[in-house]
Amino acid sequence: MSTISLPSELTSALPSGYGIRRLQKTDKADFLAVLSVLTTVGDIPDPAWNDRFEYIAKNEDTYTILCITDEAGQVCATGSLIVERKFIRNCGLVGHIEDIAVAKDKQGKRLGLRMIQALDHIAEQAGCYKSILDCSESNKGFYEKCGFKFAGVEMAHYYSK
Amino acid sequence: MSTISLPSELTSALPSGYGIRRLQKTDKADFLAVLSVLTTVGDIPDPAWNDRFEYIAKNEDTYTILCITDEAGQVCATGSLIVERKFIRNCGLVGHIEDIAVAKDKQGKRLGLRMIQALDHIAEQAGCYKSILDCSESNKGFYEKCGFKFAGVEMAHYYSK
Repeated sequence: MSTISLPSELTSALPSGYGIRRLQKTDKADFLAVLSVLTTVGDIPDPAWNDRFEYIAKNEDTYTILCITDEAGQVCATGSLIVERKFIRNCGLVGHIEDIAVAKDKQGKRLGLRMIQALDHIAEQAGCYKSILDCSESNKGFYEKCGFKFAGVEMAHYYSK
Repeated sequence: MSTISLPSELTSALPSGYGIRRLQKTDKADFLAVLSVLTTVGDIPDPAWNDRFEYIAKNEDTYTILCITDEAGQVCATGSLIVERKFIRNCGLVGHIEDIAVAKDKQGKRLGLRMIQALDHIAEQAGCYKSILDCSESNKGFYEKCGFKFAGVEMAHYYSK
């Protein structure tokens, strides 16, 4: 797994003792606990975790899942970037930012902002012409502070299983 | 390249003589002409076309690019599905519908609707728990007719190159 390279302004803006790195296989419990602030995660058995982790690690040109760790080295925030390869815009690349989550007891430390800045940087370095994300109306202001602009509406179709 | 399997109600609802299938390498000129109704495509040289086409064909578990062909077998509409692998929702899958385009002289034949129905079907068959897409406010009504509901706002960050 390749290490990520982020500008020192970004890493030094994290709270003292905090770090940012790729998701590791051993992060399972902490990482899934952080994600559960977003939505249902479910009880993911180890084989399913390993399979999905390995798929993502093998497809590093598409998936970047980052974790912010606290002074104790515990995962307390996460975010994902999916790089889509298109034909429009001269075979352009688009970054999709997904699943930004900060542990409830670590909110208010700008970890969400740092996560967005990190994924945004990685998308630009990967050669994306833009990054996009979907959010609620109430989070628009936060993403505007991160350099994003309103671009349209998100429509979803949920399948019943 | 695997062939796609679509319900007969869907394929038989296409205009007489029209078909729907995966993008093929030989579609370059027609396909890029259709895409150009959306945005800048640029002058894509053959090696770049071949590389991107092969990347997409090799990653069929992620990318499905469909084309509707007219009576002459010419590509007149297209749309893409990108299947994202997540950890939330029990290692759930999400379909991202992208780059829906219909040739200007073939509009008004419900080809856009058929394309969405086809990608939506493929996403559900692939095991996605939902599909999402971004559109302009003015296209919301069209996607509602396709079974989609408003889910949030799209934010974008364009990088200057």
